[in-house]
Amino acid sequence: MMGRLSEGPHATLFELLYEPHEAGAHRDVLPYLLAIDAAHVVMLEEQALVTTSVAGALLALNQEMTERVERGETVITFVPRHRGIYFLYERELIARLGGGVGGAAHLGRSRNDINATVTRLRLREVLLGVIADACDMTEALLDAAGAHATTTMSGFTHLQPAQPTTLGHYLAGVGCEMVRSIEQFEAAYALVNVSPMGAAAGYGTSFAIAPARVADLLGFEAVIDNSLDAVASRDYLVAVLATAATLSVTLSRLATDLQAWSSVAYGFIDWPDSLVSTSSIMPQKRNAFVCEHIRGRSSHVVGALTATLVGMKGVPFANSIEVSAEATSHVWPALTAVNASCALVAALLRHVRVSTETASTFAERADVGMTAVADALVEHAGLTFRSAHEVVSRVVASGVTGRLLPQFTAALNVELARLPARAIDDTVIAAALDPATTARAAEHGGGPGLSSVRAQLGALGQRLAYVRRRSSERRDALFTADARRRTVAAQVVAACQRDTRQPATKEG
Amino acid sequence: MMGRLSEGPHATLFELLYEPHEAGAHRDVLPYLLAIDAAHVVMLEEQALVTTSVAGALLALNQEMTERVERGETVITFVPRHRGIYFLYERELIARLGGGVGGAAHLGRSRNDINATVTRLRLREVLLGVIADACDMTEALLDAAGAHATTTMSGFTHLQPAQPTTLGHYLAGVGCEMVRSIEQFEAAYALVNVSPMGAAAGYGTSFAIAPARVADLLGFEAVIDNSLDAVASRDYLVAVLATAATLSVTLSRLATDLQAWSSVAYGFIDWPDSLVSTSSIMPQKRNAFVCEHIRGRSSHVVGALTATLVGMKGVPFANSIEVSAEATSHVWPALTAVNASCALVAALLRHVRVSTETASTFAERADVGMTAVADALVEHAGLTFRSAHEVVSRVVASGVTGRLLPQFTAALNVELARLPARAIDDTVIAAALDPATTARAAEHGGGPGLSSVRAQLGALGQRLAYVRRRSSERRDALFTADARRRTVAAQVVAACQRDTRQPATKEG
Amino acid sequence: MMGRLSEGPHATLFELLYEPHEAGAHRDVLPYLLAIDAAHVVMLEEQALVTTSVAGALLALNQEMTERVERGETVITFVPRHRGIYFLYERELIARLGGGVGGAAHLGRSRNDINATVTRLRLREVLLGVIADACDMTEALLDAAGAHATTTMSGFTHLQPAQPTTLGHYLAGVGCEMVRSIEQFEAAYALVNVSPMGAAAGYGTSFAIAPARVADLLGFEAVIDNSLDAVASRDYLVAVLATAATLSVTLSRLATDLQAWSSVAYGFIDWPDSLVSTSSIMPQKRNAFVCEHIRGRSSHVVGALTATLVGMKGVPFANSIEVSAEATSHVWPALTAVNASCALVAALLRHVRVSTETASTFAERADVGMTAVADALVEHAGLTFRSAHEVVSRVVASGVTGRLLPQFTAALNVELARLPARAIDDTVIAAALDPATTARAAEHGGGPGLSSVRAQLGALGQRLAYVRRRSSERRDALFTADARRRTVAAQVVAACQRDTRQPATKEG
Amino acid sequence: MMGRLSEGPHATLFELLYEPHEAGAHRDVLPYLLAIDAAHVVMLEEQALVTTSVAGALLALNQEMTERVERGETVITFVPRHRGIYFLYERELIARLGGGVGGAAHLGRSRNDINATVTRLRLREVLLGVIADACDMTEALLDAAGAHATTTMSGFTHLQPAQPTTLGHYLAGVGCEMVRSIEQFEAAYALVNVSPMGAAAGYGTSFAIAPARVADLLGFEAVIDNSLDAVASRDYLVAVLATAATLSVTLSRLATDLQAWSSVAYGFIDWPDSLVSTSSIMPQKRNAFVCEHIRGRSSHVVGALTATLVGMKGVPFANSIEVSAEATSHVWPALTAVNASCALVAALLRHVRVSTETASTFAERADVGMTAVADALVEHAGLTFRSAHEVVSRVVASGVTGRLLPQFTAALNVELARLPARAIDDTVIAAALDPATTARAAEHGGGPGLSSVRAQLGALGQRLAYVRRRSSERRDALFTADARRRTVAAQVVAACQRDTRQPATKEG
Repeated sequence: MMGRLSEGPHATLFELLYEPHEAGAHRDVLPYLLAIDAAHVVMLEEQALVTTSVAGALLALNQEMTERVERGETVITFVPRHRGIYFLYERELIARLGGGVGGAAHLGRSRNDINATVTRLRLREVLLGVIADACDMTEALLDAAGAHATTTMSGFTHLQPAQPTTLGHYLAGVGCEMVRSIEQFEAAYALVNVSPMGAAAGYGTSFAIAPARVADLLGFEAVIDNSLDAVASRDYLVAVLATAATLSVTLSRLATDLQAWSSVAYGFIDWPDSLVSTSSIMPQKRNAFVCEHIRGRSSHVVGALTATLVGMKGVPFANSIEVSAEATSHVWPALTAVNASCALVAALLRHVRVSTETASTFAERADVGMTAVADALVEHAGLTFRSAHEVVSRVVASGVTGRLLPQFTAALNVELARLPARAIDDTVIAAALDPATTARAAEHGGGPGLSSVRAQLGALGQRLAYVRRRSSERRDALFTADARRRTVAAQVVAACQRDTRQPATKEG
Repeated sequence: MMGRLSEGPHATLFELLYEPHEAGAHRDVLPYLLAIDAAHVVMLEEQALVTTSVAGALLALNQEMTERVERGETVITFVPRHRGIYFLYERELIARLGGGVGGAAHLGRSRNDINATVTRLRLREVLLGVIADACDMTEALLDAAGAHATTTMSGFTHLQPAQPTTLGHYLAGVGCEMVRSIEQFEAAYALVNVSPMGAAAGYGTSFAIAPARVADLLGFEAVIDNSLDAVASRDYLVAVLATAATLSVTLSRLATDLQAWSSVAYGFIDWPDSLVSTSSIMPQKRNAFVCEHIRGRSSHVVGALTATLVGMKGVPFANSIEVSAEATSHVWPALTAVNASCALVAALLRHVRVSTETASTFAERADVGMTAVADALVEHAGLTFRSAHEVVSRVVASGVTGRLLPQFTAALNVELARLPARAIDDTVIAAALDPATTARAAEHGGGPGLSSVRAQLGALGQRLAYVRRRSSERRDALFTADARRRTVAAQVVAACQRDTRQPATKEG
Repeated sequence: MMGRLSEGPHATLFELLYEPHEAGAHRDVLPYLLAIDAAHVVMLEEQALVTTSVAGALLALNQEMTERVERGETVITFVPRHRGIYFLYERELIARLGGGVGGAAHLGRSRNDINATVTRLRLREVLLGVIADACDMTEALLDAAGAHATTTMSGFTHLQPAQPTTLGHYLAGVGCEMVRSIEQFEAAYALVNVSPMGAAAGYGTSFAIAPARVADLLGFEAVIDNSLDAVASRDYLVAVLATAATLSVTLSRLATDLQAWSSVAYGFIDWPDSLVSTSSIMPQKRNAFVCEHIRGRSSHVVGALTATLVGMKGVPFANSIEVSAEATSHVWPALTAVNASCALVAALLRHVRVSTETASTFAERADVGMTAVADALVEHAGLTFRSAHEVVSRVVASGVTGRLLPQFTAALNVELARLPARAIDDTVIAAALDPATTARAAEHGGGPGLSSVRAQLGALGQRLAYVRRRSSERRDALFTADARRRTVAAQVVAACQRDTRQPATKEG
Repeated sequence: MMGRLSEGPHATLFELLYEPHEAGAHRDVLPYLLAIDAAHVVMLEEQALVTTSVAGALLALNQEMTERVERGETVITFVPRHRGIYFLYERELIARLGGGVGGAAHLGRSRNDINATVTRLRLREVLLGVIADACDMTEALLDAAGAHATTTMSGFTHLQPAQPTTLGHYLAGVGCEMVRSIEQFEAAYALVNVSPMGAAAGYGTSFAIAPARVADLLGFEAVIDNSLDAVASRDYLVAVLATAATLSVTLSRLATDLQAWSSVAYGFIDWPDSLVSTSSIMPQKRNAFVCEHIRGRSSHVVGALTATLVGMKGVPFANSIEVSAEATSHVWPALTAVNASCALVAALLRHVRVSTETASTFAERADVGMTAVADALVEHAGLTFRSAHEVVSRVVASGVTGRLLPQFTAALNVELARLPARAIDDTVIAAALDPATTARAAEHGGGPGLSSVRAQLGALGQRLAYVRRRSSERRDALFTADARRRTVAAQVVAACQRDTRQPATKEG
């Protein structure tokens, strides 16, 4: 029996909509429900909307149930054909305290604002976890970048050898995207951590409640202004998931490169046996299979982002299960996928073994110095860049490669002789063709030159440290709010116990 | 002939990849290319990487072409089997100035950083337009909310009448999401408006270029630190499109409600003939068809967001056409769809006619005062809310409605008589059942009470004004940079013309 | 220890990639692995690729493990730092039978073809379940359509009353989409139910295996021709999920209408208390909340479809974990969501209560007969349809409605008098304005006329029956193949036990 | 003036919703509208719903306009503030023929069924084009597979060398997916090519129209049974786009491999200058940039599929602009992207140059024969496969590679000596290690053995030929229907002209 309804849910509904969520609700909803109830009852007492006696009884039970939940005990009885966690919870209160007390807390609120609040309480914790994992992973990335700031390799565009660079420069580039994503997660936290409590069903209340007080006791940074917005909107999910998708897709790009470079065709990097797999039939195999998991996890996040938007599309702007339950369900597994990707990437980067020799030899053989040669013709032969580029292009197209230095220089000089240009000598060309030298020289425009990469890593490190500091402050603020709520609740319980003459309920 | 290649693109490639983009490139790329070239050449001259004479010749032609483009003239010759706008453009320079000057600008840069820069220059303008349109639409929304702050109507949850509210409260709720989206666009602008110039092909340069100077002359707020990040990343597209998707999907929710409320079944709102359609066969028809366009436009944006992420997934982290061209192409039509949705919503809101009588009558008949009755029982009969809710539920379930006041009060008192509770009288219940009274009383928790809604609208108005001010500053900054670049370029041209003794090119 | 690898997986890998899948692998993979092994070993024995003795020992153990799994027992020991179910399984065989027998089955195959096969075996069962649930739901739909073939209601376009129809006609329309989706599932089954076994790692084998025999013993309808296709492709997932998405999205459309029509504004339909919810604070509430779950479940399916395609995009065409594991993981929860939606819709349709009076009154008041009036003017006044439409439009626009019959006819005649047209009388107009009469008359073009709807339902019923018959044959074929495999395996075991002189293993 | 509306569309609506579609409507809608009108009027005349005289006048004008449209002339005047192509078209008829004739065709139909029909007429043509392009591309694929059926290369899994294969085997594998996709397009055609005409606004008609006749004259294969389904559903779009997405994503996989294999690291394949690009700054560059376009085009298709489903989600099941216009708009550019991808892939495959030497040398050096060695130990040393795999694994892990044959065989024999196994000799191992020999031997399980690949290609070729034949028949059927419609229409025109005594219109 609930309200005006004469029967519990139809068996099909119960089996599909209520029963499957029992364990999840006990684990992921109940702790937050208890916290909300504590904050709400404290506020009601302070606003004289319930008596101290009623508040004290509710808060004493709340404290007991909270402790039991924290010990891992089950405190809710899942009766047959129930209608979800909130009704079971209130039923428990009434069973323990009588209707005159157990039913007193649900004033100036409804399940709608409670549900909206639970999602935000849960998400802010998960989000801090994602930020922490993303920071750890990015730290591993920046550490590897620092360790390989002078590890020469071929840069690539369109998969073809392009210009000399260093592994550190590559990793710093990826790090820039990571840090931006982390900063966006950080910004999204502020969207998440605001309180819907007091919105009730979406239309506020005439009771003189104090939403700011509830928000404060729950560690929220602000109260949502409009009650309809409070229950109807989940737009922060899109902000969180879009950033998650960006980060995951960028990791898919990193994983694509790492897997290629660890393949036999490149051989630049490698991992210990604990980070590769072999085959059940191909004895020679050492597969960087983790890269495929990292790439693949991005599909979970993009799918969740799409699903969330699909779930919200065309829904009336009001409380709706379609948004508050169905569309909201996609964020949890998606963020778990992000956590996993971060941990996997961190493991790969912390244990990667780099074959500097192989990487550098590949670069030497791959004609990646040709732009530097053209640059040298600008500087030493007095050509415009376009003319220099054409000279080198003609020589390259004729089949003469930089690996045969004297022939190559000679061929260049034949071309130069046709132009108003100065001849060039071997030394200049040799320097241009040496990948390490050229990479080192690219100090400008954010290139792989050592001081350039060090400056990049320094800046990224500082931004990362800032986010870590902010996250730490936020985590502290949650702990503080939690402690404050427990203290105030305990004071109400104590006040109630002192004042034994006051009747426990208005109804008796 | 281009570089080492002995032939133009294959006919299939030309027809599918180059030819179809000719008009777009002239319109959407060339103006930015000219601006970039001006800034870059000024910088090269200042850094003594080209002579004043060469710079002056290039800048004089640049100025001429810019003016012609601004007059709507075609300045590029689309030769058969070309390889895209950049080559055609440089070809034009060389044809006009000779290889010794025309080919001198392409130093310390490449098409990769130029392309990355063009996209950012174009997007920042489009984004400012989207922000402006979204602000206009939100202003229409807030204006309508203000005008209907006391227009009583039924609130709904799950499509069923819920509690009394006002149209103004509803619109303010939607306005909250709008303002948040606009603020996110505003934040995304900062991600967009940074300069990739100097990154060259992604590996920087050994020439002592001054990327900050180029950025400044192009109105960018900062330089991208890492050259690979500069050419490989388009993560800002996801940030922009995710916000666009949120806004569009929220508008789809608004449109869903507006269309329902304008239907015969509700009749709360209506539009003049110019904003509805009729049927080619059903003479009675007045369809709010614009709402369906608004809902449907959200599909374009969600599709573009998905497509962008698909395009980026699994691509090597380096310059890639898959990211820089294919994945980037989705943002333009999507933002056009956002502009359209904003304009359509603004038109609907500016011209909506509200049938306050119909809306208020619907609320009266729909039992939306029952929560207020339960609240009254808490206040006047001394029940807990849960007990009060059960009392009202039983009466409602028995079929007695609030439309028969004496019977309803009598039925409540029968129930109250069974409990330890005080009896209730008609006056209290009549007030609870009056939608206007109850809506007015909901001053707490962000409800529809008048001062509550006024406070909400005031806060939203201020946030909107702030974004408008920021956008205006940003637009000013772009104009200023534009003017500065033209002035400096003109100075170099003048200096060159004064100094006629200097040879025009190094090569002669 | 596995192959050339000297250590188990890194702790992070184990915790994220192997451990979480243990329960799922035992439940969803192992039964299929046992079936595959039985079929493969029977074939190896028949092809003389293993001795009868080895085959007999393997098959006896296979039979024992299969029986234990069917009894719900755990037959695999999940040792720490294992590398997944296949290795654990083979480890078990070797522990029980020795390396000389336990390791003999993995010939002419690899984990790649086994994994591909497991997914297909599992999916075909799930798909038959989805087809069955979709058929049940469609049957409920067609039953309701039949029961309401003459229940007059307003048809709608753009949410506005359009022309008279019947609830049965509406439901038959939705039924058409359902049947098409079911037929597409049926067609997709043929894509799924083909055998990859024998493809090994993707490059076939030189052993003279008999893939057709393995396929036959596993109930597959055919063998995949190319070994690379067998392990690299999962294109059938897109076919299945696209159909699932279509069906789910169509159900979201149905749910949108049902929820609207059950709302106070329409009141056409209703459900018993067991199929609605109420509110924790609004006593009057009876919410058709199930409709929101149905709408919302479509987001899971669209998200899964997108995710699957994202997972496949840009992956080398070969066996890849990204496709075989990550991209493949989305189909299961999506099809569970489809099952749930079907069951929920079926429950709603089997228990819906229709207020025929309310529906018919709404239609009468909503001017839905105006097209019929125009049609009548064509027939009786001799106008072209366009002229007739204009005449009625002018009358309607003047504010005269069909609810005032004499005035309405008079107004029409005033207009007709201006044209070369005959006058019209009340009787004709009254008939046109009666929704039931007009709906009944719409026998052409697939309209709501009774014989038209009956013909539609008859055709849909036949197509549904055909799919049910096909599904039943397919289910039978799976049972038959299962029985055949068990019989043949038992015969090998028996032959082996008879022939005790043959050594159990080649290696001894 | 249209129907009851007193004014044209609001300027904003006109600029955003009507004006931008003018050119598209004239090109993509009008030809079909003319065909529909011809078929519909012929039917009306045959059913005696309009006089021969009216029909003749309409059909004569129809014929004239059709011819002018076919000559590329503009036949519609786009007046200011119009409400779309249909009204402009009918306005034209009335202007030319008077209201008594020009407005007579719109009987037993509405814009809703016409729009639904136009989309299907247009899509079936586009779809035949897609099928043709996909067939051409697949033919190029199969031709290349045939030409390289014995071109030995390394197979890969997880990017690492796996087992020997041939380029032909790889291409045949991709070809399997292509042919399946083409067959699904073929099946989708039947979903598309059915007639909605007669459904009118979605509720049929009481006029005794003959929908089957209209369908026949338009080349449709059947009539849609239910009028609501006819106007509300666009489910075939999902079927078409899902197949398009599958095909595009598979091409992204092919392009990924082709680009890798054409890179310096592999060097297996190459293209002439007309199919590669170079760099504006890197003279050595030959980029397989077309592969990135092919990969990237898949994002357009996946985005369109998602967008289509988003557009349909939660829309009332009835005619809706959200579905019929907004959601339907995504299919056209997506299929254009598929056409482009097919043409680009065909160009790449028709002109690819294969370095058989490089491919085969890579395979030899990459230890891809190790599975064959293990297989040989099963056959020649009497081990189980698992034992054989472990023996080879140990040898490989010790660092001895197959490139040093005598040492490798010796190491194997050391291991074998520890087991109950026979020793192995060099000849057997040498054969196993020869990639060409091993690839040739893999005749079973769909492997790269020559007769195996030839059989695969034969089967694929036959399936492709079947689809081509079906498409050709379908194209013929469309031509035939077209001719039939023109003939019958001309007969009506002639009959009308003969019978000059009959008045041209009922109204006069």
